[in-house]
Amino acid sequence: MTPETDLPTLDDIRAAAARIAPYVHHTPVMRSGLLDARAGATVWFKCENMQKVGAFKARGASNAVAVLSDDRAAKGVGTHSSGNHGAAVAMAAARRGIPAYVVMPRTAPRVKRAAVAGYGARITDCAPTLAARESTLAGIVAETGAHEIHPYDDRLVIAGQGTVGLEILDQVPDVDAVLVPVGGGGLLGGVACAIKSLRPAVEVIAVEPVGADDACRSFRAGYRIPSVDPKTIADGLLTSVGVRNFALMQRYVDDVVTVDDGAIVEAMRLQWTRMKTVVEPSGAVSFAGLLRHRARFAGKRVVAVISGGNVDLERLPW
Amino acid sequence: MTPETDLPTLDDIRAAAARIAPYVHHTPVMRSGLLDARAGATVWFKCENMQKVGAFKARGASNAVAVLSDDRAAKGVGTHSSGNHGAAVAMAAARRGIPAYVVMPRTAPRVKRAAVAGYGARITDCAPTLAARESTLAGIVAETGAHEIHPYDDRLVIAGQGTVGLEILDQVPDVDAVLVPVGGGGLLGGVACAIKSLRPAVEVIAVEPVGADDACRSFRAGYRIPSVDPKTIADGLLTSVGVRNFALMQRYVDDVVTVDDGAIVEAMRLQWTRMKTVVEPSGAVSFAGLLRHRARFAGKRVVAVISGGNVDLERLPW
Repeated sequence: MTPETDLPTLDDIRAAAARIAPYVHHTPVMRSGLLDARAGATVWFKCENMQKVGAFKARGASNAVAVLSDDRAAKGVGTHSSGNHGAAVAMAAARRGIPAYVVMPRTAPRVKRAAVAGYGARITDCAPTLAARESTLAGIVAETGAHEIHPYDDRLVIAGQGTVGLEILDQVPDVDAVLVPVGGGGLLGGVACAIKSLRPAVEVIAVEPVGADDACRSFRAGYRIPSVDPKTIADGLLTSVGVRNFALMQRYVDDVVTVDDGAIVEAMRLQWTRMKTVVEPSGAVSFAGLLRHRARFAGKRVVAVISGGNVDLERLPW
Repeated sequence: MTPETDLPTLDDIRAAAARIAPYVHHTPVMRSGLLDARAGATVWFKCENMQKVGAFKARGASNAVAVLSDDRAAKGVGTHSSGNHGAAVAMAAARRGIPAYVVMPRTAPRVKRAAVAGYGARITDCAPTLAARESTLAGIVAETGAHEIHPYDDRLVIAGQGTVGLEILDQVPDVDAVLVPVGGGGLLGGVACAIKSLRPAVEVIAVEPVGADDACRSFRAGYRIPSVDPKTIADGLLTSVGVRNFALMQRYVDDVVTVDDGAIVEAMRLQWTRMKTVVEPSGAVSFAGLLRHRARFAGKRVVAVISGGNVDLERLPW
């Protein structure tokens, strides 16, 4: 089976939901009359910033760790991550009592680094490039025999993130459109698969920072075009879309829209000041997409996924 | 009737709840396993930061404005306020289509000033002293015939704030103790009256910044001792306890505890980073009290009232 055909299905996502239910939060959806007025739509915010470890990543990592046999798990798990996935793997490993090895770019926000360390994971620093992350992790895996859990290009991880989609359909049964941030595409691929499998008429729109717009360009071209030197304030969305993730995008996603960093900061600010909820830049991208493409969503019932809420309070973008 | 005997009753609070229900939010209570562990108690946060205008003040002002006859209302309403009460009066007046005159100290946070202006109120600046606020407002009232709505020492305002107490008993029926920030004492007096009238065994504890501890000193002395030159990061709690408010404290409040600004900032930070909710310094005082007096609340079921969430994101205390 090639990666392009090794894709999660609705059954995988349902199995993940049952498997991870004891370990993750069923997160709330929030509403705000003020933000509805700004958007010109009826908006539900799916609050994965209130998820364990402060981001949806808890779902995929919990699924991937829970499914391991005791023998396979004993040597531990490893991953490379700019932060939230690393914390999620560290949490899941700590719960299971197995070692976690996390490779982090030296540029990762301090708050995310502290979270990974807080779960007792062993952190290895590397240069902030995908190549450095992958080769550093490969060395650790060769040495320890740890099981690698890819941050997004992994069937079980994508299935775990897809449980967000199941919850959205439960919480907002008459939703018209769902806006999802895209970086590596784990959340997007899983949510799109869940929603389109159950309710094909619901639009699934990916939102991407214009400074890291490989998903948008790839979607238009019909083949993967990885980012070269991406730059955006949304530090969780710097990675390029994975192979499985892109295949899911092609199958299930209706469109990809982009937003600039100014729009992301403005959306984040509105969510902080009006809805009183702490959202990280990557998590505000979905609402930024809604604000920047108002006409498209006018009068609709829209869910915007807040993917995470881990920000360094000493380094806010205003 | 002297002010000391002109006190709201449970019936006033119930009438206020019915009167303001169309205009204010029934705010949620939030939980956090991480913050429970920090506190060593089971904690519900009553989220008045998610109230209209971002603070509980919407309740009292809505009650005081709604009760006016059309004749009395026609000349408008006036108040002096460091911010949240001013915004609340401005909102209630705008909804009723009457003028609002708001006297604000020149030191009021910009975000609070913008909120008042946003509702179309006429703002008059004054020096940041109670005497200046009162005399400036008196001049405006004499000139316009506006009806004055005191920020806290007012039976209808206190009854409105007391509706928070009714909601707490609905949402957490088996609560052991309720922690409430105290500045002028409108929220404290109303909540204490509601809770003790219905459930005398529930402890009601006031929490006050040590740099503005007139409520604590007055409570111990048995008579009102207003603050002289109070200083605290909790800008909503600089005022001294009112006459009616002190009488309610003496009747219904079990104890007053104090916290320093360091504890307030630490509590605020934990609420932002762990619970992902935006709390203003005055709103974090209740949780600060819980953390600083852990032994007293160990293992109990505690409600901490988050009184507001209006902060200037350019002037955060870290």
